[in-house]
Amino acid sequence: MGSLPLDASLRPLDPVSFAGESRAVVDFLAEYYRDVDKYPVRAADLEPGLLRKLLPEVAPENGEPMEDVLEDVRRDILPGLTHWQSPSFFAYFPMNASTAGFAGEMLSVGLNVVPFVWAASPAAAELECVVVDWMGKLLGLPQCLLFSSGGGGVLQGSTWEAVVCTLAAARDCALAKLGHESIMKLVVYASDQTHVTFQKGARLVGIPPSNFRVIQTLAPSGYGLTAHAVRAAVDRDVARGLVPLYLCATVGTTGLGAVDPVRELGEEARRHGMWLHVDAAYAGSAAICPEFQGYTEGAELADSVSTNPHNPRALTSALSTDPEYLKNVGTNGTGKPAAVDYKDWQISLSRRFRAIKLWVVLRRYGAVGLRAHIHRHVTAAKWFERTVAADERFEVVVPRKFSLVCFRLRARFPEDDAVDDLNRELLAAVNESGQAFMTHFVVDGKFVIRLAVGGAMTEMKHVVDVWELLQGKAEEVLRR
Amino acid sequence: MGSLPLDASLRPLDPVSFAGESRAVVDFLAEYYRDVDKYPVRAADLEPGLLRKLLPEVAPENGEPMEDVLEDVRRDILPGLTHWQSPSFFAYFPMNASTAGFAGEMLSVGLNVVPFVWAASPAAAELECVVVDWMGKLLGLPQCLLFSSGGGGVLQGSTWEAVVCTLAAARDCALAKLGHESIMKLVVYASDQTHVTFQKGARLVGIPPSNFRVIQTLAPSGYGLTAHAVRAAVDRDVARGLVPLYLCATVGTTGLGAVDPVRELGEEARRHGMWLHVDAAYAGSAAICPEFQGYTEGAELADSVSTNPHNPRALTSALSTDPEYLKNVGTNGTGKPAAVDYKDWQISLSRRFRAIKLWVVLRRYGAVGLRAHIHRHVTAAKWFERTVAADERFEVVVPRKFSLVCFRLRARFPEDDAVDDLNRELLAAVNESGQAFMTHFVVDGKFVIRLAVGGAMTEMKHVVDVWELLQGKAEEVLRR
Repeated sequence: MGSLPLDASLRPLDPVSFAGESRAVVDFLAEYYRDVDKYPVRAADLEPGLLRKLLPEVAPENGEPMEDVLEDVRRDILPGLTHWQSPSFFAYFPMNASTAGFAGEMLSVGLNVVPFVWAASPAAAELECVVVDWMGKLLGLPQCLLFSSGGGGVLQGSTWEAVVCTLAAARDCALAKLGHESIMKLVVYASDQTHVTFQKGARLVGIPPSNFRVIQTLAPSGYGLTAHAVRAAVDRDVARGLVPLYLCATVGTTGLGAVDPVRELGEEARRHGMWLHVDAAYAGSAAICPEFQGYTEGAELADSVSTNPHNPRALTSALSTDPEYLKNVGTNGTGKPAAVDYKDWQISLSRRFRAIKLWVVLRRYGAVGLRAHIHRHVTAAKWFERTVAADERFEVVVPRKFSLVCFRLRARFPEDDAVDDLNRELLAAVNESGQAFMTHFVVDGKFVIRLAVGGAMTEMKHVVDVWELLQGKAEEVLRR
Repeated sequence: MGSLPLDASLRPLDPVSFAGESRAVVDFLAEYYRDVDKYPVRAADLEPGLLRKLLPEVAPENGEPMEDVLEDVRRDILPGLTHWQSPSFFAYFPMNASTAGFAGEMLSVGLNVVPFVWAASPAAAELECVVVDWMGKLLGLPQCLLFSSGGGGVLQGSTWEAVVCTLAAARDCALAKLGHESIMKLVVYASDQTHVTFQKGARLVGIPPSNFRVIQTLAPSGYGLTAHAVRAAVDRDVARGLVPLYLCATVGTTGLGAVDPVRELGEEARRHGMWLHVDAAYAGSAAICPEFQGYTEGAELADSVSTNPHNPRALTSALSTDPEYLKNVGTNGTGKPAAVDYKDWQISLSRRFRAIKLWVVLRRYGAVGLRAHIHRHVTAAKWFERTVAADERFEVVVPRKFSLVCFRLRARFPEDDAVDDLNRELLAAVNESGQAFMTHFVVDGKFVIRLAVGGAMTEMKHVVDVWELLQGKAEEVLRR
């Protein structure tokens, strides 16, 4: 028979089949967005293991057409998803998808360059420097955090990577002075509202778990960490011969959207020579609206802010690698100006061309468009907070700062032990309806329902709908 | 004026503008693939900082149309990229892009679900379990590594994350027995050919740098690590009261494509109670062709293989987090069968829907198509190796095992000190031509040129072309 010519559609990047199959996926997704509000936000009756029963035990031997694959996504996968793009998804923190973000991801994946060293794709590495400065300026961050003033930033895959990188940088600075065996003495500080992955990060970098200080927060400070409480904890540790290493301040905590006072904590951290990291993962982006920039005031005292490390030298010295096979087209010693090798700013070697996504989003929507997006969500959350507060069956548990509202059914009488169960039932009833999806939090022992407004398609009417749904379910629950 | 209705094209996921703008990006990329071989693979005359001069200092205030953004990508970004999708890109390890991989990424980004806990998107988490078992079977891995037999796997963002996760797991197993202060005694072992990010990983998890053993490899074993050398190093450490923790075996090293003997190293690791990790990042995928499966023979002795942890209990106990806000729709204690919460299998909390990409690729091309892809590259590399070996000016430095050929201009006489410089000049001349891009390695003090065949569009003719280019440039260099 001889060998047959390769079917063009099986050539990995044949331009014609690439365009045809990719358009089919675009149309599939456009249809999904059109219909996403018709799916239950989260199917209530799923059991682990269902999908495995639907799919074969081994990969197919022969390739199949793209339309068959898409048909199976529609039939087998979509019904089992929790629909994060549903306008009635109010759980966790919603993912802000957008047409421009999608376009940026397509360019990132399609160009498929790996800017881990400058030479491996110069324009990609440089675009990252440009857009992190753009972001820093939009957010009103202090000059000292920008590349243009000796700082600099990197787009990590997640905030958690930023936390781990900066923990490692702080640790290595300390151990370089004290010797590695002093790792047993290093102490990290955060509040009981700090994201739990902070502890995972501290554990990952080898800080002894007995040296994690989780400082209690209270209602009067809106569950923000106070400098006073930090000082008390640090003083105790210093008296015991331990070394304060790292303080994590959060602007917009995951559970309640609480804000730690950056300037006060920064001053406290300086007093003890600690690294201050400001984790503004959730609420930081709100600072593109000037009215929210007060929350990061004092950021010039921080060693790092979310993905924007102030102290690139400490960071890169903890994370740099210079094997021979990365050197050959490097820029050191070539007489050219220094370039940014982003591999040394993150924990992985390989990396995506993330900058182009952020760049396309900033270009396509502009600062005005992004601010409008934030305002739309904050306005809806404000309305919801006001409306909940006006209903005597409910209470708002923590004053809303951004677009997260934490509320619950109010205790009907002092020592109402059943109120947590009622709230649990209410949340379950809402989620089981499939008409909305929310998650909960526990603060001061109280079960609290979280409404996080932030979906790309979420508009005022969806927030109005979820309030009606909540009222109906509350009546049912209270009647039982 | 009142508030104007939001322009549909600025609604983040309006289906009509989503489809229109996404199609424009698809067409842009199809055109790029059609023309990619017309760009210099890597522009030779770039200087750090060029792009910053081309772009404004701040983000635009108002949004711009997608066509303007794409035009700027074409004009400002493309000329500054190193074109990883060029068929003449032979540097590092090429990225295997494909139409199906792109479709899978689009679905991942478009559906935009975050399967960090089962409940956050059940079908996405389950699809990951299914496809990692599909992959394990395709690669001929031992049953014990599959979910279906009590093992299991996770799709990490990079091999390096797998290494860090398993290092942390091994460390925590040891410290649970010995106490945290014993972190000073833990020793990790790898060869001088192991990827440098292994040391970065060991440093990240707090192993003292003085406890990294980099064991020398030699030409007779093809630069593979021998069990004998490992034993000698371990015995020395044990005699000094240290604790052998972790041995990294590589199947297909980055520099030379060398293979460490998995079974022998596995037996040696067992003897000392060490964690054995098999890093098959580069060459592992070749094992979908049965003729390459011998290289991972003995993998049942490993605790983890690349992204396929054998010992999920140790892994999840090192990496799990159970904050209150992730519990509310969890599956423990609900009477339902246990589900996989992938957040505990990786270092970040958040994660992409990676499974759908792998699933689309496996479905679209099938095992047959993927094997053909591997064979195409290996055949071209074989031809290149044979041709280089037949030219008396050149030598192949290490026998080729997969699709990476390591070669150089041969020393013209004993003690030819200039031969490294000649090879350096040859590589520079090839890369400066823009007609191909390769990188180098240094082994036993020798400067070696690497030709890594693996690009999606790379066919035999491109390898023939690069050989002609090399011959021409070699003549020039030798004539000087």
